[in-house]
Amino acid sequence: MQNIFSDIPENLKDELSEILLQSSGFRVERIVSDGHCSKAGFWYDQSEREWVILLQGSAGLRFDGQDDIIVLNPGDYLHIDRHQRHRVEWTDPQQKTIWLAVHY
Amino acid sequence: MQNIFSDIPENLKDELSEILLQSSGFRVERIVSDGHCSKAGFWYDQSEREWVILLQGSAGLRFDGQDDIIVLNPGDYLHIDRHQRHRVEWTDPQQKTIWLAVHY
Repeated sequence: MQNIFSDIPENLKDELSEILLQSSGFRVERIVSDGHCSKAGFWYDQSEREWVILLQGSAGLRFDGQDDIIVLNPGDYLHIDRHQRHRVEWTDPQQKTIWLAVHY
Repeated sequence: MQNIFSDIPENLKDELSEILLQSSGFRVERIVSDGHCSKAGFWYDQSEREWVILLQGSAGLRFDGQDDIIVLNPGDYLHIDRHQRHRVEWTDPQQKTIWLAVHY
């Protein structure tokens, strides 16, 4: 048994992404952000679909073509379609933000 | 956007299980227990594999052939192989226990 809130390095230069489970057609990842956000002008444009839930911390997500930033708090989840361009505007500067993502 | 800790009926006669995401080869479910446990003598014996994380509450899980009860607290996750017989000995009587399960 492991814990998703444990075994996190204190100092994270970059976002930390680890595969927790992988099988035919999907993978489950833990992503840890430490105040990280997408670089200016960068958009994720993924060939896979993603279901993502935020489990600790908070984050601001923006979809291309939408002005509003979607604020995610613990327990919030949403679906990102393939090639649905999006970026992380900010993550909590006070604590690690922990995401669980299913890419499929 | 939805929240995994929200939209839970106050009174749950039985465990509540909902599919949050389903695609080829896997499905993601939210399971809500309200002090529920497996009936005496009952064992889950599933043809699918399961990756499960407890997100709220607590639970005691037992695998067939093992005397020890595994206590899960928020963030704890584990993998259950197909036909790995197991049962839920108890869930938190004080609050709803919320699980996220990936069946594949």
